[in-house]
Amino acid sequence: MSASKPSRSPQPTAAALIIGNEILSGRTQDVNLNYIARRLAECGIRLVEARVIADEERAIIAALDDCRARYDWVFTTGGIGPTHDDITSESVAKAFGVPLEQNAVARNLLEQQYRERNVELNEARLRMANMPRGAELVDNPVSGAPGFKLGNVFVLAGVPSIMQAMFESAVEHIPGGVPLRSRTVVAYLPEGTLAGPLKELQGEYPDIDMGSYPFYRVGRFGSNLVLRAADEGRLEEAVRKLVARVDQLGGEPQLEA
Amino acid sequence: MSASKPSRSPQPTAAALIIGNEILSGRTQDVNLNYIARRLAECGIRLVEARVIADEERAIIAALDDCRARYDWVFTTGGIGPTHDDITSESVAKAFGVPLEQNAVARNLLEQQYRERNVELNEARLRMANMPRGAELVDNPVSGAPGFKLGNVFVLAGVPSIMQAMFESAVEHIPGGVPLRSRTVVAYLPEGTLAGPLKELQGEYPDIDMGSYPFYRVGRFGSNLVLRAADEGRLEEAVRKLVARVDQLGGEPQLEA
Repeated sequence: MSASKPSRSPQPTAAALIIGNEILSGRTQDVNLNYIARRLAECGIRLVEARVIADEERAIIAALDDCRARYDWVFTTGGIGPTHDDITSESVAKAFGVPLEQNAVARNLLEQQYRERNVELNEARLRMANMPRGAELVDNPVSGAPGFKLGNVFVLAGVPSIMQAMFESAVEHIPGGVPLRSRTVVAYLPEGTLAGPLKELQGEYPDIDMGSYPFYRVGRFGSNLVLRAADEGRLEEAVRKLVARVDQLGGEPQLEA
Repeated sequence: MSASKPSRSPQPTAAALIIGNEILSGRTQDVNLNYIARRLAECGIRLVEARVIADEERAIIAALDDCRARYDWVFTTGGIGPTHDDITSESVAKAFGVPLEQNAVARNLLEQQYRERNVELNEARLRMANMPRGAELVDNPVSGAPGFKLGNVFVLAGVPSIMQAMFESAVEHIPGGVPLRSRTVVAYLPEGTLAGPLKELQGEYPDIDMGSYPFYRVGRFGSNLVLRAADEGRLEEAVRKLVARVDQLGGEPQLEA
């Protein structure tokens, strides 16, 4: 969407902070952002930006302070495990200016869990019970050690299966907005041919977010034209016009949800 | 790495700006960041942060201005195609305070290319020749329409195959640093057991970046312990000590490159 477009239906806003050297070194392909992005869209929450930052206190605090002031919600992933490079909880405490302390409920959870698994709850593992004062726990149904919520910040794990489970616990805490509906028109025409008609349609429907994504498939050039809006009636109207125009141009339009 | 650690070998720094609503809406899983991250690491350039932002002028300018002042190099992906939502070039021009104008070399390239493909070079496609004054072209051996370099900013396409080709053209423009070497010790022990020994080793080798990444594989818990450093001798020494310690703990250490 462009800056000049009138604002759409009221949607809460969010940012994601993906914390981890392994993403920035290229060792690991992040998949958490895509999960968060899809699920927030389904909940009617607009993900405005995401940042990938290192396991470095100053970087985490700076990104947190910037984003928590600017957006309704912030989701962090990574850095809450037992090892020395897990410094997200400390950094969140410093960003909020509150002490990091052992959370009694989290400690009880860890004790119970490690007793059941017959594994020693050593000093390193106990670090996972350290949370900023005032933190509310975010349930971790996968591996037990909880995430937390402080103010408008949700602090989640980095391992995708755990992050996803925590996200689902977290999202129950927050009121959603009006979900944007999305329709994709597949057109077997290159972007350069569709650009004019699409720009015209965008002018006619400034309330609809229109994007064009080129593809090359089985020897043919084409474009996925994605329309997103909260108002289903307006969306269907614009989609009908677009399909007719693509058909007129010989682009064999196909509709996807 | 933590903020308190002494700085390592001199490495140029970089940021990546992934521009595109489709990433933030969850429609598309970004793969460009991982490519850029891996290749920069190989070139000895440290990727310090990445941001995913919308196709929105204010957001692009703010992120550009923040990152180009802070890092040696900035790489942007996305938003340089022919459609109305492709606004990266305009935004870069505004960030640098220079006019956007038709680049004669780029126009010639487009003319030649569309003539060969027997496709009309219409107004929309000609937009791809618009670049900030002073831009140097970055070659696009895949689809022709070039990217560009302005100051310390490289502006690349969003389609992964094109982005990768452009990145390889771009990286020739810049002097690399000392590449960090990386070794991974696979240990069949949970992170909580390894945390203490790893922290000790980190204290002994503050110049080595040590990370721990848990996994669950064929019914067993384990951790990938990743050590990264410019000095190969120091790295091998630390790896030997870590392998011995993991072996002592019964973790069946295995070395990966």
